[in-house]
Amino acid sequence: MRIAIDAMGGDHAPEEIVKGAVLAATEDASLQLTLVGDQKKIEPHLGEVRPSNIQIIHTEEFITADDEPVRAIRRKKQSSLVLTAQEVKEGRADACVSAGNTGALMTAGLMVVGRIKGIERPALSPTLPTMDGKGFVLLDVGANIDAKASHLLQYAIMGSIYAEKVRGIENPRVGLLNVGAENGKGNDLTKKAFELLSQAPINFVGNVEGRDFLTGDFDVVVTDGFSGNIALKTIEGTASMFFSMMKKAFLQNMKTKLAAGMMKSQLKEIKASTEYAEYGGAALFGLGAPVVKAHGSSNARAIQVAIKQTKQMAEKNVTGIIEETIKQIKTDEEEV
Amino acid sequence: MRIAIDAMGGDHAPEEIVKGAVLAATEDASLQLTLVGDQKKIEPHLGEVRPSNIQIIHTEEFITADDEPVRAIRRKKQSSLVLTAQEVKEGRADACVSAGNTGALMTAGLMVVGRIKGIERPALSPTLPTMDGKGFVLLDVGANIDAKASHLLQYAIMGSIYAEKVRGIENPRVGLLNVGAENGKGNDLTKKAFELLSQAPINFVGNVEGRDFLTGDFDVVVTDGFSGNIALKTIEGTASMFFSMMKKAFLQNMKTKLAAGMMKSQLKEIKASTEYAEYGGAALFGLGAPVVKAHGSSNARAIQVAIKQTKQMAEKNVTGIIEETIKQIKTDEEEV
Repeated sequence: MRIAIDAMGGDHAPEEIVKGAVLAATEDASLQLTLVGDQKKIEPHLGEVRPSNIQIIHTEEFITADDEPVRAIRRKKQSSLVLTAQEVKEGRADACVSAGNTGALMTAGLMVVGRIKGIERPALSPTLPTMDGKGFVLLDVGANIDAKASHLLQYAIMGSIYAEKVRGIENPRVGLLNVGAENGKGNDLTKKAFELLSQAPINFVGNVEGRDFLTGDFDVVVTDGFSGNIALKTIEGTASMFFSMMKKAFLQNMKTKLAAGMMKSQLKEIKASTEYAEYGGAALFGLGAPVVKAHGSSNARAIQVAIKQTKQMAEKNVTGIIEETIKQIKTDEEEV
Repeated sequence: MRIAIDAMGGDHAPEEIVKGAVLAATEDASLQLTLVGDQKKIEPHLGEVRPSNIQIIHTEEFITADDEPVRAIRRKKQSSLVLTAQEVKEGRADACVSAGNTGALMTAGLMVVGRIKGIERPALSPTLPTMDGKGFVLLDVGANIDAKASHLLQYAIMGSIYAEKVRGIENPRVGLLNVGAENGKGNDLTKKAFELLSQAPINFVGNVEGRDFLTGDFDVVVTDGFSGNIALKTIEGTASMFFSMMKKAFLQNMKTKLAAGMMKSQLKEIKASTEYAEYGGAALFGLGAPVVKAHGSSNARAIQVAIKQTKQMAEKNVTGIIEETIKQIKTDEEEV
């Protein structure tokens, strides 16, 4: 499995990206990794013996977090991100990973890798922690800000396929993010989407409220990119508020510090079970090959997990199955 | 100040509602409270000496959490909620409070109390906890699911007036909930709303992401009812996930239980600072008189706070100031 990696994208690039690639390549000899970026900055982090299944494509141009996505992809043709996507487009890689500018990666996905035929809009799809530790796929979280009901239907199908093939969940339960659990609730978009999802070849279990998607009762939650982005960032914001309040409480005095020491393993467990990185990056569903956005703050471990996830998406042929399923649905519709 | 209270609405009605009214009436002799509901069920909770500033309007009909709002308001004319709103409409009360069916209260607000002239849509507006303990007003969280940019402008004005007059914040900072902090981000709605807010007579400080509204950097956050509802419930869901994980961790064994004991006052403080009840209920802005929705799970303390808040809204003439401000803006527009 050949995976191209943007070595220059992310808050801790290239060091953590390169180290993550080394971890993945060492663990799995069947991987062929291509690191795209500044050779001089990459090499120091490859370790004493560079794994034989890692190669480098050298470039000195890169896209920053502040670059405007579309302009960056058009103008920075030699950037590590564009060259990473090129590897996929030209068939030298089966899939790619970047922890860089999300908008730029989505744009490169669309403009360089290209959409699956029949898919109207790609969806950015992270897997988020749930209380039972199993996690759920939330999509879209911002690839497509003004969504239509037909997009949500395709998200549901793509999310289901991913949950089944990559996450190994049989008959994944799909929910529609909405303002009430009852049928008939919602805005124009969710009312229409509810109808479409009810008739789709998926295990649609109905509406889900923001208060209930972290319980573990849903494997896939579908929403428009605007609401999904709000929900995702609200989870992050609330979690970070809690962690900082707990930290402050534990550091208050000698007694609380002692208590913190006594709770060490339990606190570690909570931190670990809410760690996004363990669930991999956010996959961009609907593109002609697996494209995965690792979290901007990814460390080596997060990159290693994202590479593994990308490999699984390619291995399980998620792209091909999505294409086949969409084609089948269109054929069925035409026959009716 | 005369306030009508739906004694039969809420998970712990009538007991906690009545007890909350007694607390408020005892604390503040200037209040004249009217409890609307089943006299036989109300009286046992009034205490040995019923405060002289509490009266009862007896009715045996009430609206449940499962009632469809519009139908309930139309058909249950003698329900405690409808009679509570009637008190306001007919001038026997200055404002009202209910912890019952949110949709039904919003419908009664619109159909019985009525809108302020010039207000296109009322907004349901809770005050939520922030990290610095100051809180912020989020609106709308679901009174109006398919919102227009002009609605968001009115929300911003109403939220500002409330923050200033009732919460005592000078020049309140107003943010627009969006998918990115930069100008130009968002869906059609937020792009249009950004333009309108930039020109409004408020302290508009720009876009705010879900990750940042709990920091205390904003006093008012404006959004459409769909996204606001998702954000509100996502905060609740994430917070409840954390509390239950922490509880499980603290109860794990003898050592963690001991640690919990050592952290008791700090944990209490965290719980208190994230307690919605201390910030009052969700005000329905844009109606002809203050109408406040207390949380469904309100205890006596939460009801007491909500009554106090309702009194302040009436006392500070929030309704009148909103009406004047909206009229002024319309006049200015016509003159331009």
